[in-house]
Amino acid sequence: MLTSEVKKLLVQIVGQENYKDSNEMRLVYSYDATPTFQSLPDAVISPRNKEEIQKILQLCNEQQIPIVPRGSGTNLCAGTCPTQGGIVLLFTHMDKILEIDEENLTATVQPGVITLDLINAVEERGLFYPPDPSSMKISTIGGNINENSGGLRGLKYGVTRDYVLGLEAVLPNGNIIRTGGKLAKDVAGYDLTRLFVGSEGTLGVVTEVLLKLVPMPETKSTMLVLYEDIDAAARSVSKIISNRIIPTTLEFLDKPTLEVVEDFAKIGLPTHANAVLLIEQDGPPEIVSRDMEKIAMVCREEQALSVEMAATEEEADALRTARRSALSALARMKPTTILEDATVPRSKISEMVRAINEIAAKYDLNICTFGHAGDGNLHPTCLTDARNEEEMERVEHAFAEIFDKAIALGGTITGEHGVGEMKSPYLEWKLGKEGVEAMKAIKQAFDPNNIMNPGKMFAKDSRKRVLV
Amino acid sequence: MLTSEVKKLLVQIVGQENYKDSNEMRLVYSYDATPTFQSLPDAVISPRNKEEIQKILQLCNEQQIPIVPRGSGTNLCAGTCPTQGGIVLLFTHMDKILEIDEENLTATVQPGVITLDLINAVEERGLFYPPDPSSMKISTIGGNINENSGGLRGLKYGVTRDYVLGLEAVLPNGNIIRTGGKLAKDVAGYDLTRLFVGSEGTLGVVTEVLLKLVPMPETKSTMLVLYEDIDAAARSVSKIISNRIIPTTLEFLDKPTLEVVEDFAKIGLPTHANAVLLIEQDGPPEIVSRDMEKIAMVCREEQALSVEMAATEEEADALRTARRSALSALARMKPTTILEDATVPRSKISEMVRAINEIAAKYDLNICTFGHAGDGNLHPTCLTDARNEEEMERVEHAFAEIFDKAIALGGTITGEHGVGEMKSPYLEWKLGKEGVEAMKAIKQAFDPNNIMNPGKMFAKDSRKRVLV
Repeated sequence: MLTSEVKKLLVQIVGQENYKDSNEMRLVYSYDATPTFQSLPDAVISPRNKEEIQKILQLCNEQQIPIVPRGSGTNLCAGTCPTQGGIVLLFTHMDKILEIDEENLTATVQPGVITLDLINAVEERGLFYPPDPSSMKISTIGGNINENSGGLRGLKYGVTRDYVLGLEAVLPNGNIIRTGGKLAKDVAGYDLTRLFVGSEGTLGVVTEVLLKLVPMPETKSTMLVLYEDIDAAARSVSKIISNRIIPTTLEFLDKPTLEVVEDFAKIGLPTHANAVLLIEQDGPPEIVSRDMEKIAMVCREEQALSVEMAATEEEADALRTARRSALSALARMKPTTILEDATVPRSKISEMVRAINEIAAKYDLNICTFGHAGDGNLHPTCLTDARNEEEMERVEHAFAEIFDKAIALGGTITGEHGVGEMKSPYLEWKLGKEGVEAMKAIKQAFDPNNIMNPGKMFAKDSRKRVLV
Repeated sequence: MLTSEVKKLLVQIVGQENYKDSNEMRLVYSYDATPTFQSLPDAVISPRNKEEIQKILQLCNEQQIPIVPRGSGTNLCAGTCPTQGGIVLLFTHMDKILEIDEENLTATVQPGVITLDLINAVEERGLFYPPDPSSMKISTIGGNINENSGGLRGLKYGVTRDYVLGLEAVLPNGNIIRTGGKLAKDVAGYDLTRLFVGSEGTLGVVTEVLLKLVPMPETKSTMLVLYEDIDAAARSVSKIISNRIIPTTLEFLDKPTLEVVEDFAKIGLPTHANAVLLIEQDGPPEIVSRDMEKIAMVCREEQALSVEMAATEEEADALRTARRSALSALARMKPTTILEDATVPRSKISEMVRAINEIAAKYDLNICTFGHAGDGNLHPTCLTDARNEEEMERVEHAFAEIFDKAIALGGTITGEHGVGEMKSPYLEWKLGKEGVEAMKAIKQAFDPNNIMNPGKMFAKDSRKRVLV
C-alpha cells in the first residue's frame, strides 16, 4: 500500500488525471497475457514525459516502491504482472512517432507507439521495420524493447535487438542516459543499448527509442507446404537453409494447431496434413521467384504432399493472419492456454518436436506445437484448465521436461517471450549458477533497491531439475 | 613487478615455456599499433586452455595484478598497451577453428584464430563471415570481439557484434560463463554476449566464440567514382542510400590520401580527383548489375568526373587492397601517424569532412581523410612527429575539436576503433557523466579489483571540453 504522503507526491508529479488507484483500474492492470499470474498493483500512473518519470523513479527508489513499466501487456512470461504490488507505469501519453529520417534510415519513437502503427508509417515511405511479433496490432515498441520481441520475419531479418540503434532511459537513481545514435558504428564504451533490450524493465525505464529501418523489399511471395510426416517437414527446414537460402519466414504448424486455426479463421486450410510449413520470401522479384522454386524443389524431395503458392496478396495475407491467430484460436478451446517458447538449433527441430509429443503423451496432456521453425523457435502450447490442480501439476512437469530437453539439444528456455516471473525458476538451467550470478551483479549495480520490476528474471530459488 | 612467489605460481599454471619475462619479450609487448603509447608489462604468458586462464585470473584477482588480453595488437586506441604493467595474456595456443556447422550456419572458434583464416575457411564451404577490419590479415577474432571491429563491409552487413551468437568467458572471480547458443533467438536474461563484445578486455577473458555465418553472395561488383568536389561525393553517399540501395561497401578517400595510396600501391589510381568513392555491391548477378547502374546514375547526377567499373576481379581486388593499405601508406610519410575514428550520421558526412579540413587548416596540420562513408565512419589521419612537442599539442587540440564536432553532429568519438586509453578522456563527451557512471557500475560489478585491462575505457579524469 502506498502511504497518503506518497500518493500525494505522485499526484503532484503526474497530475490527478494520470494517477489511478480505483479498484477497477487496479484489477485491469493486475494481470497481463500470461495465464495463472495475477496480483493487484497499488496504483496505475501515466507520466507525460521523461522528467516526470525521473521524479517517479527517484521517489520510488527513496521509498522502495516497486515499479512495473508496461506497454500493452501482451507478453507471455508474466513480465508485466505486478507480483509485488507497487506502481504500474503506462506510456499512454508517450506514444508519438517523433521522426522518420529517410536519409539516415532511422525512426525516433516514444515507447508507447503501437508496433503496427510504426510499421505502417514507415512502409508509407517505402521503408521497412521488420520485427513483427504476433501481437503487433496492440503491442508497443517499448514493450518490444523490454522483451526483445521476435516475430515471423526473424529468420531473415533478426529480432527487435537488431533494430535498436540507441535509446534514452531513466535509471533507478534518477539519472537519464542516452545511448547510441544514428550510427551504423559506435563503440564508445559498453553496449548499454543492447543491455537494455530484453532487460524486461528490470534496469530502468526506456523513454525514447532510435530504430534502424531498411529499404522495403520490392516483392513478397508466400507458399504453403503440406506433409504427411512431421520429420520430413523439419528436415525440409534444415535443408532449405543448408541450400544457402534464407527465407523471410519459415513457420511450422502441427495437425492439431492447423485444425484449430482453420476452425477459427475459416480460410480453407488443409486439415488433413500432419504438418504444414508456411514459407515466405521477399526481395527483388527475380530472386524471390528463383528462391521459391528452389524451396519447392527441396520440399518435394522431402515428400511434401503438396506445395502451393499463394495466388494473390490477399490469399498470402490470409495465411499469415491465420498463423498469427494461432494463440487466439487455441485459447478458445480450453479455459487455460499455456504457450511456451522452447528454442533449439534449427538442426534439432525434428528431435525437439518428437520429444514434445512424447512428453505430452507421457503426462497425458493436450500439447499443440507451432512456431518459427527456421529459427528453431517452437511454441508448444498446452490446452488445459488452471482450476484442475492435478492436471496443472502434470503441465508443470511436462514443461520442465521440455525446457530440459531444449537445453540438452543446445537450445534455450525462451527464444522470444522473455523470462519474466514465469520462467525465472529455469534461468539457471540455461545459464548455470555463474551466469545468473553475473546477471544479478548487473541488476544490483543498476538497481540496488530492487524497485524495477522486482521478482522478474531472477527467481528467489531456482527450480530443481526434474529427473528425466 | 611480480614477486618470485607469483612468478612461480604462474609458471606452474602455464608451464615454463609459456611464461616469458625477458627484457626482449617485455619490450615486444610494451606497445600495440597505437602511436605514442608504450609501457612494459611484467610478464607475457600464453595459457593453453580456459582452465589455465581461470587459474591465472583467480591468482591475479587475489594479488591485484593487471591482466591485458591481447590478440595481434592491431588496435588503434592503445587498447592492449599494458599501461599499468602486469601480465600480457596471449592466445597463441588457442587458435583453432573448432567447428563450421553448415546446417546451423555457425562457426565455433578460439579467440586466437586470425580473422582472414576464418573468412577463407568458411568461404571454402560457400559461407560468408562479413566483418573485415583492414587489419584482418593479422588481427584475431578475440581481438575483433574485444574491440567490436568493423570494416569495409559494415554498411550492408554490420560489424563483429552482429555475428556473435554466444561466447565463453572467464570472469575476474574465476567463474566461467557461457552465453547464447546456435540460436537465432534467445532472450534468457540480459544480453551478456553483446555486453562482452566491445568491452575491450575490461570485463573478463573471452575463451571461445560462436559466430553466425551467412550464405556467400553469388557475385560482387566494384566501381570507382571520381569527383572534383568533395561535397558532391558526400552528397552521392546520402543519395544512394536514400534511393533505397544499401551497397556492401561505400568508401571515401580524399585527394591527399589518394596520392599517398597510389604512391604506395602503384595500381594507377587517378590522383587528379579531389575525392574518390570506392563502391561495391554483392548479391545475385541481376540485382548487383541493376544496383550498380542506379548507383552510377546517382553519381553522375552529382557531377562525378568519372564512373568506372572494375573490369576484372583482380582489378577490384587491387582497389580494395589499395584502400585497406591506406594506413600503411600514410604511415610511410611521417614518423608518427595518428588515425582517428570520428563517426557521424551519414547525412552529416559532407559537413564533417569540411569541418576536418577547417580544423586542420586552423592548427596548421597535415590531416588526410578517408573511411567508410556509407557508415559515416571517417578516419581523419594526421601525419606528424611525436618528437615535436609543440606540434603534438596542436594535434591534440585539433582532434579534440574533431570529436567535439562529431558529437555536435549526432556522432560519436569512435565508430570502430574503441576507446582504450587513447580516447578515454573523451568518453564523457559522448555519454555524459550519467552514461559513464552507468558503465563504471558494470565494470565495478564484474571486476571490483580492477585487474582486467585497467586504465582502459575509463579515464582518471575526463578531459575538459576545448572551447571552440
